[in-house]
Amino acid sequence: MVVCMALYSSSLFAEAKSISDDTQTCLECHSTVTPGIVADWKKSRHSRSTLPESLKKGELERRISTSTIPKGMKDIVIGCAECHTVNSAKHKDTFEHNGFDVHIIVTPTDCAVCHPAEVNQYKNNIMSTAYKNLTHNPVYHGLMDVANSVVTWENGEIKANKPDSMTEDDSCLSCHGTNVEVKGIQTRETVMGEMEFPVLTGWPNDGVGRINPDGSKGSCSPCHTRHSFSIAEARKPSACATCHKGPDVPAYKVYSVSKHGSRYYALGYKWNFDAVPWKVGEDFSAPTCATCHVSLVTSDGEIVVRRTHQMNDRSAYRLFGLIYAHPHPVNSDTSIIKNKGGLPLPTELTGEPVSAFLIDKKEQERRKANMKQLCLSCHSTQWVDNHFIRIEKSIETTNAMTLAATKILLTAWDKGVAVGLPGNIFDEAIERMWVEEWLFYSNSIRFATAMGGADYGVFANGRWYLAKNIRQMSDWLNFLVSAQKAGK
Amino acid sequence: MVVCMALYSSSLFAEAKSISDDTQTCLECHSTVTPGIVADWKKSRHSRSTLPESLKKGELERRISTSTIPKGMKDIVIGCAECHTVNSAKHKDTFEHNGFDVHIIVTPTDCAVCHPAEVNQYKNNIMSTAYKNLTHNPVYHGLMDVANSVVTWENGEIKANKPDSMTEDDSCLSCHGTNVEVKGIQTRETVMGEMEFPVLTGWPNDGVGRINPDGSKGSCSPCHTRHSFSIAEARKPSACATCHKGPDVPAYKVYSVSKHGSRYYALGYKWNFDAVPWKVGEDFSAPTCATCHVSLVTSDGEIVVRRTHQMNDRSAYRLFGLIYAHPHPVNSDTSIIKNKGGLPLPTELTGEPVSAFLIDKKEQERRKANMKQLCLSCHSTQWVDNHFIRIEKSIETTNAMTLAATKILLTAWDKGVAVGLPGNIFDEAIERMWVEEWLFYSNSIRFATAMGGADYGVFANGRWYLAKNIRQMSDWLNFLVSAQKAGK
Amino acid sequence: MVVCMALYSSSLFAEAKSISDDTQTCLECHSTVTPGIVADWKKSRHSRSTLPESLKKGELERRISTSTIPKGMKDIVIGCAECHTVNSAKHKDTFEHNGFDVHIIVTPTDCAVCHPAEVNQYKNNIMSTAYKNLTHNPVYHGLMDVANSVVTWENGEIKANKPDSMTEDDSCLSCHGTNVEVKGIQTRETVMGEMEFPVLTGWPNDGVGRINPDGSKGSCSPCHTRHSFSIAEARKPSACATCHKGPDVPAYKVYSVSKHGSRYYALGYKWNFDAVPWKVGEDFSAPTCATCHVSLVTSDGEIVVRRTHQMNDRSAYRLFGLIYAHPHPVNSDTSIIKNKGGLPLPTELTGEPVSAFLIDKKEQERRKANMKQLCLSCHSTQWVDNHFIRIEKSIETTNAMTLAATKILLTAWDKGVAVGLPGNIFDEAIERMWVEEWLFYSNSIRFATAMGGADYGVFANGRWYLAKNIRQMSDWLNFLVSAQKAGK
Repeated sequence: MVVCMALYSSSLFAEAKSISDDTQTCLECHSTVTPGIVADWKKSRHSRSTLPESLKKGELERRISTSTIPKGMKDIVIGCAECHTVNSAKHKDTFEHNGFDVHIIVTPTDCAVCHPAEVNQYKNNIMSTAYKNLTHNPVYHGLMDVANSVVTWENGEIKANKPDSMTEDDSCLSCHGTNVEVKGIQTRETVMGEMEFPVLTGWPNDGVGRINPDGSKGSCSPCHTRHSFSIAEARKPSACATCHKGPDVPAYKVYSVSKHGSRYYALGYKWNFDAVPWKVGEDFSAPTCATCHVSLVTSDGEIVVRRTHQMNDRSAYRLFGLIYAHPHPVNSDTSIIKNKGGLPLPTELTGEPVSAFLIDKKEQERRKANMKQLCLSCHSTQWVDNHFIRIEKSIETTNAMTLAATKILLTAWDKGVAVGLPGNIFDEAIERMWVEEWLFYSNSIRFATAMGGADYGVFANGRWYLAKNIRQMSDWLNFLVSAQKAGK
Repeated sequence: MVVCMALYSSSLFAEAKSISDDTQTCLECHSTVTPGIVADWKKSRHSRSTLPESLKKGELERRISTSTIPKGMKDIVIGCAECHTVNSAKHKDTFEHNGFDVHIIVTPTDCAVCHPAEVNQYKNNIMSTAYKNLTHNPVYHGLMDVANSVVTWENGEIKANKPDSMTEDDSCLSCHGTNVEVKGIQTRETVMGEMEFPVLTGWPNDGVGRINPDGSKGSCSPCHTRHSFSIAEARKPSACATCHKGPDVPAYKVYSVSKHGSRYYALGYKWNFDAVPWKVGEDFSAPTCATCHVSLVTSDGEIVVRRTHQMNDRSAYRLFGLIYAHPHPVNSDTSIIKNKGGLPLPTELTGEPVSAFLIDKKEQERRKANMKQLCLSCHSTQWVDNHFIRIEKSIETTNAMTLAATKILLTAWDKGVAVGLPGNIFDEAIERMWVEEWLFYSNSIRFATAMGGADYGVFANGRWYLAKNIRQMSDWLNFLVSAQKAGK
Repeated sequence: MVVCMALYSSSLFAEAKSISDDTQTCLECHSTVTPGIVADWKKSRHSRSTLPESLKKGELERRISTSTIPKGMKDIVIGCAECHTVNSAKHKDTFEHNGFDVHIIVTPTDCAVCHPAEVNQYKNNIMSTAYKNLTHNPVYHGLMDVANSVVTWENGEIKANKPDSMTEDDSCLSCHGTNVEVKGIQTRETVMGEMEFPVLTGWPNDGVGRINPDGSKGSCSPCHTRHSFSIAEARKPSACATCHKGPDVPAYKVYSVSKHGSRYYALGYKWNFDAVPWKVGEDFSAPTCATCHVSLVTSDGEIVVRRTHQMNDRSAYRLFGLIYAHPHPVNSDTSIIKNKGGLPLPTELTGEPVSAFLIDKKEQERRKANMKQLCLSCHSTQWVDNHFIRIEKSIETTNAMTLAATKILLTAWDKGVAVGLPGNIFDEAIERMWVEEWLFYSNSIRFATAMGGADYGVFANGRWYLAKNIRQMSDWLNFLVSAQKAGK
């Protein structure tokens, strides 16, 4: 085994192509200064591929989507300088570094030099606008405040204070992305002598909707970790788990107990996660997150589904309820949505979808058909059709339960034992119970239905809790009313 | 590594035996129509084994338990037609398909052609009757209702509605198994032209106690996933995790933090999960779920434990409390049990076991001795004996705590702040807290004791919650009484 | 692959060195009696290494820290007798066994024959004193009681009973370690005839702070599982997960959704976990628990961090709040700490650290610098510095929230709806809610900040719960007061 791996390693480096002079200069110091990332890059496809070679491949085999070779990139592999000095004029984080105009943050715009199709698809992805969707929506921002605010207990009352930005960056924005801006220049003593570096806000961050110093949105490395940028890594469910594991969006947890996940854990270490295109049955025996939502999958040379980096391109519904599940928004910027009640929500407080901002039936059918094509590689039409009917039933029942919880909350507001709009609707105990009805339990159930995640639809934050929570809200309401009568 | 795997793959197919003409016909279309499952089958032992070859092996090496070769199966590998056309007259889901009488659902009865011993053992397994045990027991059915019912909020009161069957199929019955019946014939346009297919209820489903259209119970594929039906996959804990991961039965979670689990995760990818018999120490360095509960394990050619598909054959106690932990039921059909209070429960509401329906001391000792034999492969007699004494202590203390919680509930019923028998005893908030005392916390602790799962016996749904829940129930009772006094 | 593994296995045993006569005698019976552990040992480095060979290696390559070869150990590999008969006079569990003075429990003192540096470091580790720190601290012992006590419901009141020692051993002490003492001799019929064995208390146990029959503290096998004692196993996060996975100390859970963990799960099976020294970037592409807290890591032959078995040697803060996060205690024995209020706690009840017993700023900076050295292998100085600033902010905000929760509790005590000091401060429902504020939610958030564990700082026991819990405590306080007014 050890021998095999040694052979494998050496063969890897045997094919090393010419490295640009600029990158060579980077490597001279950084092999010592940051050896971990240099070693990682050496294991990457970037370190041993040139654009002309990549373009020689058939269209389905290609990992790049450009068809032209930018000036100066003809005979070289993709190294440090190729990414960290490209587009330098656009980058506010560009600084003079040993004679080079280097920028710290390589952004989707930079990656688009070779991967334009993927970057353009990603722009249509709600994730790309995750920063704005959260921070520029006053309702969601209220939820953020409620999570991040430090409270104090003064004169028998809770007093909420304004959350500081460092906590926000460390909390919600660690996944949603921070706003990275250049705030001056810092001089620092380094092993290479005194040097100047740009000072960044919201840093470190690797969120999917990060606002970058070149004005672009998002990041490719949450899934394709720097500096190997591996397709295999992004295709494994652990890549998605970094953001999609909490009770609010338990996709990874649900997957892990699904039949698909069970097979991945039992057999996945033998599958071929590096093949492009990805051949169903041959390269893998059960889908991962990427298979269903992103990857180009083929069978016998025929396309089953095309690659997309717009993650909802095969999803008819947004299962993740805000506050109710609904057809996907048309625009990746959801902060522009306004419901009849004037709230920036994709549904009314009572559940009706705000159709003008959401995809229509036809687009829903198109997306569903896309996904079904993949399911049919292993399952019969009846199996697949019924599975999708169950998803709609699951949305219907969880939305109905959310409505019941909402009505209890409205009663609490009505009776004056909790304070609703225009105040923060998420801060009091009974309001937080209501939030969990949709954010935790309804979501868990819908994901469980969609992926066959058994207990996440039953006892693990599933229907058991969905129902128990309503009973507890009802009792809690009574206790509040009774305490109110007793003069608190 | 890649080279090794390529060699491995090609050698696999080099030994391909003759495929029956019928199966060859299936493959002609299905290689294109459902390429994923065909590829999976090609990787299976079925696709390269004949019965005569299998019967040449020594008894301990065999994966089949038949000793005769059914007509027509002498020189062929086991393919599509061999399983999907066998016993076709018994199958209500049999339909005419391109000249063949094909049935959709391959059942344990079909598998019994080659694996009769395993199927017979499985029939004695409580899991095989999981559908009936849940749906035909009015008490447990009440628990099902409480989980799956969609409620509405009307005039300040919660109104529970009857759960629909699609939700039940998607929820509890996804693991317990649905009732699959043929409800007519459907004509569908396919890539091969217009075709007719039987319409099935409760479909898709792969639950362990599924009622099949041939009248049989259960399914082999929840553990041996179609269409590779791998023994290796079933031996890995991920196979069990699909059903045994929730807070109600956290076996997988507990295993994953046990020392046995820790070794599996660290070293398991190097173990031999395909060997029959399974050689302790040599093939694996720590047990998985299958090792302790199912597999044939040997050492130096001697049997340590015999294979069993009656999962409780090595378990003296049913740790999974309903409502209290108790000796295992004698019969896999637990819906026949009746306690002194007339309830279909294996214990009284106060904990005494209903002995007439449960295995006796002698049988308990036999099962315990079976399991201990395995433990002794690595642990001393003192270690093992004390471990089993702890399990009995853990049952004793968790049963005692359940009794305390039950008494609080009885007080609530007595004071009229909750409504007990003959109504649903699981629906109100305080009743649901009581359910969690035994279904979540007691279970978690007992599994943790049994498998050395540390924190699942302490803070992770363990003793901390077991005790906290009782304090909360007690306070909740006071709040209910106080709200009652205040005229609600 | 199979071929590779076979070659690997055979090559392993080809180098088998001479086994001592004593060990040979052990093996004669135990190959049959306990085949699992014998097979495990055969796979170990112990079974094929001699001390002279090990001493020939360069200092960085060595796995032993002794520089001398004890008498009689010159030409032999390390087998059963070498460990189980060494220091026999010190061991109260020594017994006559087939002509040998054998002791059951191999302790750190025994391991120190070859690994003295590691054992000495471990003594400075708080974990080594985990038994005493829990059981000899009256405050923490109160928390233990509250978790392990079996309660009864009598005359409408909860009555707590004294926990039995078997439950304590099975619960808290399963990780903290039990007190293992010899309580007489037992005669037992074995397959080898009648034999005598020492009877041990608190057995089985493999806790990190176990009190051993030779007077030593702790155990090496919680991480280096007997009988392969593998460095690879200890370097994998699953080793730490056995104790560090619960909601009280969710280190493993947080790691598993961090970027580091994501890479480990995606790529770790290809890394070299057996290399000494451990070469950053080359042997592994992301750190595991051991990398950051224990291992000797090098780059290009230069030391990045030195090996330490004092787990907090690179940690400035004790994130695990008791009751507030604080600088690490100086002494591994924390039961000696006393705060101004006379309580054995490292902070006041209001959060101020008890500086006399805690490391000073300078030592904190030394430890932080140690850890940063490792981070800098892959991350820039700005990235790393800001990361550590965030940790301090996270400590500040979670401590502030704990203070708010503490003030609510003080109000409850003040109003007489809960009973505080000198009684048990953890037993009532509202007190247990307070415990979860620091033990579950604050800890989860701090670990999430420290490891980049996203949702464990937000919705998965993170800031959402930290804030919700305070609101619930506040309402609960009102309900208690209102029930009190209503005459209960």
